[in-house]
Amino acid sequence: MSSSTVSGAIGTGRLVSQVSRRRNLGVLLREVHRDGAVSRTELADRMGVNRSTILTLISKLAATGLVREETSATTGRAGRPSLVVRPETGQVYVLAFDVAVDRLVAARVGLGGTVLERREAARRRGNDDLDEVVTVLAGFGAELVAAAPPDATCVGVGASYCGLIRAADGKVRLVPTIGWTDLDFGPALGRRLGLGLPVAVGNEAHLGALAEHERGAGAGSRNLVYLHGDVGVGGGIIVGGRLLDGDEGYAAELGHMIVNPYDGRPCNCGSRGCLEAEVGEEALLEAAGRAGGPLGREGVRGVVQAAERGDAAARAALDRVGDWLGIGVANLINLFNPGVVIFGGMLSEIYRGAAAQVDTRVQNSVLPVSRERVALRTAALGYDSTLAGAAELGFAALLADPLGALSR
Amino acid sequence: MSSSTVSGAIGTGRLVSQVSRRRNLGVLLREVHRDGAVSRTELADRMGVNRSTILTLISKLAATGLVREETSATTGRAGRPSLVVRPETGQVYVLAFDVAVDRLVAARVGLGGTVLERREAARRRGNDDLDEVVTVLAGFGAELVAAAPPDATCVGVGASYCGLIRAADGKVRLVPTIGWTDLDFGPALGRRLGLGLPVAVGNEAHLGALAEHERGAGAGSRNLVYLHGDVGVGGGIIVGGRLLDGDEGYAAELGHMIVNPYDGRPCNCGSRGCLEAEVGEEALLEAAGRAGGPLGREGVRGVVQAAERGDAAARAALDRVGDWLGIGVANLINLFNPGVVIFGGMLSEIYRGAAAQVDTRVQNSVLPVSRERVALRTAALGYDSTLAGAAELGFAALLADPLGALSR
Repeated sequence: MSSSTVSGAIGTGRLVSQVSRRRNLGVLLREVHRDGAVSRTELADRMGVNRSTILTLISKLAATGLVREETSATTGRAGRPSLVVRPETGQVYVLAFDVAVDRLVAARVGLGGTVLERREAARRRGNDDLDEVVTVLAGFGAELVAAAPPDATCVGVGASYCGLIRAADGKVRLVPTIGWTDLDFGPALGRRLGLGLPVAVGNEAHLGALAEHERGAGAGSRNLVYLHGDVGVGGGIIVGGRLLDGDEGYAAELGHMIVNPYDGRPCNCGSRGCLEAEVGEEALLEAAGRAGGPLGREGVRGVVQAAERGDAAARAALDRVGDWLGIGVANLINLFNPGVVIFGGMLSEIYRGAAAQVDTRVQNSVLPVSRERVALRTAALGYDSTLAGAAELGFAALLADPLGALSR
Repeated sequence: MSSSTVSGAIGTGRLVSQVSRRRNLGVLLREVHRDGAVSRTELADRMGVNRSTILTLISKLAATGLVREETSATTGRAGRPSLVVRPETGQVYVLAFDVAVDRLVAARVGLGGTVLERREAARRRGNDDLDEVVTVLAGFGAELVAAAPPDATCVGVGASYCGLIRAADGKVRLVPTIGWTDLDFGPALGRRLGLGLPVAVGNEAHLGALAEHERGAGAGSRNLVYLHGDVGVGGGIIVGGRLLDGDEGYAAELGHMIVNPYDGRPCNCGSRGCLEAEVGEEALLEAAGRAGGPLGREGVRGVVQAAERGDAAARAALDRVGDWLGIGVANLINLFNPGVVIFGGMLSEIYRGAAAQVDTRVQNSVLPVSRERVALRTAALGYDSTLAGAAELGFAALLADPLGALSR
């Protein structure tokens, strides 16, 4: 993180109330959780508080086992060895779940975003049987909790879902590949887990964007666009450091931006020529003449590898899909003037195979002022961006008030 | 404004420091400036402070001549006549300027957004002679200041410009109809005005969005999309109550979203099939067979009126343009999940003539969850949205610290 002050920190010198002390504990823990190892002096600078305040905050967090101090390999300002604060991964953890179109993932994740243990299962496509999904995930959750050290505490649960989530209550309102659902997924999973913790639910691409912004290819960027390929195409957009959610949580549906209005392919949403219809898994596999072959990540990776080996049909398919993707990306850069555009999920593979086509469209169709500084990147967290974002949802209560969350 | 608390207000009961008292004066003045007449009790509720604090704040502002109290026509909670606080328009004013493609406007604007006096002149299209523009506007400014009451104070200057403005320094970097410009318009106008005040500069559509959000068709909406037709097509987008600016201030260029990639018309930006190329003034007039007739507002209004009279060519032109506009609007609703979409400038005329086409596209191509509650409206401030937004820029310093701004 490049900025020198941290939003949320309260530093009034002498008068630090109980409330702001507790909040500052959360601010400090958040810095360490995000960046992994931060020196005392850097923390004091970022939070705008003096050395004695930082020492008090660190010792309180260290006493609960949330952080530890150790000597850094590099030296500090005055040439003395610098003490750095690191997150402890043994004391607390969250459960993170990822419901993608064709797979289910669960993980136990420690402070600092470390995946400590994980489980994964295939999911039948087009299946919206809530009970089946919850049964598999709750089983994984029980195994992960049972395998945790006996003195470790589960402090939160977050879940990523491949659907449109109402921000007000976390209801899964619509899954474009299926239709209206109105699933109470979070409450159902929470009941089955039986941990006495609520399950915070977010849209998969929104969470992928959050995670890439927090600790991935968009770290330090105030404005980023994340495109997520999971059979269809979703989006998560960070505006001024915050997730774009819109009036009810349905924003950033960039997969349903129409790029091909004339002879566009029909889209799962009922429209035609949407970005998802032109660059999703199905469009790529059909164009490459591989509609009958393997689907999902394996199928998409197969096309990219075939193109690298000189397969003309695969190359032509990537050229076509890359051109549509480039139009979508150009539109998004003109709309958001972002510092970075990130390709996640299967779009990460597609961008690797079609970067030239995307870059050409960006070069030709983005206003020069917005083209000057934007970077195009693949997701640093790979296929785990969405899971990592779910873990961040799970950590939110701890980071808002560390001592309060532990005393519950 | 519907929300019951106001961001920025500090109410700690007994301990109100000098700093927060001054800030609270600004918060109160902002409420009154925006809403026109607000009761004492409503103000206390919104700001979360008690009655005695509100009385102190009101009396301080009234003593400087910024607000006045008067008995409202309606009665208060307990059946007693309620005292309302209103902005005074005689004591302070700002100068607002609007540099559009084909006209120059200047106005003296009072608290509450009241346009007290205005000047307007035609501008030669494609003319980027900074000196000529500044000379006309500074002349208008001098006239407006001379005509103001002798005891009235000019507290700020804001300007709207039809170009891409760098947020960091207000430089006009690019005008899509002209190319790179890198004009130091604000400093040049400020020097020529000689008022000792800086000139804050913003993109015309950004300012139109701000004004419609503040006191227009988007009042009370946290997320809105404003499309502005001024020969070309610009955009201003409010996200979570704040203007979408992007990394450097160039965001919301929705006019350069590609909607017609196959046989799209060439766009002034160098690309093809941009929304601006398909729905701008030129596209409409050509499609209606009126390319040789009047341009600008007159030309666009002429097409809409002809279609209303049954002119087939005008009707077909509006159908075509309305369809492209609908595609653009559908994309924007899927991306922003806004509460309201507002058509401003010449697009307000076009939407009146092509609402059915736009609505059909929205119905067919927006995800149902985002379509449920969105409203499509024309700008409540008409052609003055951009000028009103420039006035808001001018008022910013006063609203941040009323007494500080007056003592300078």
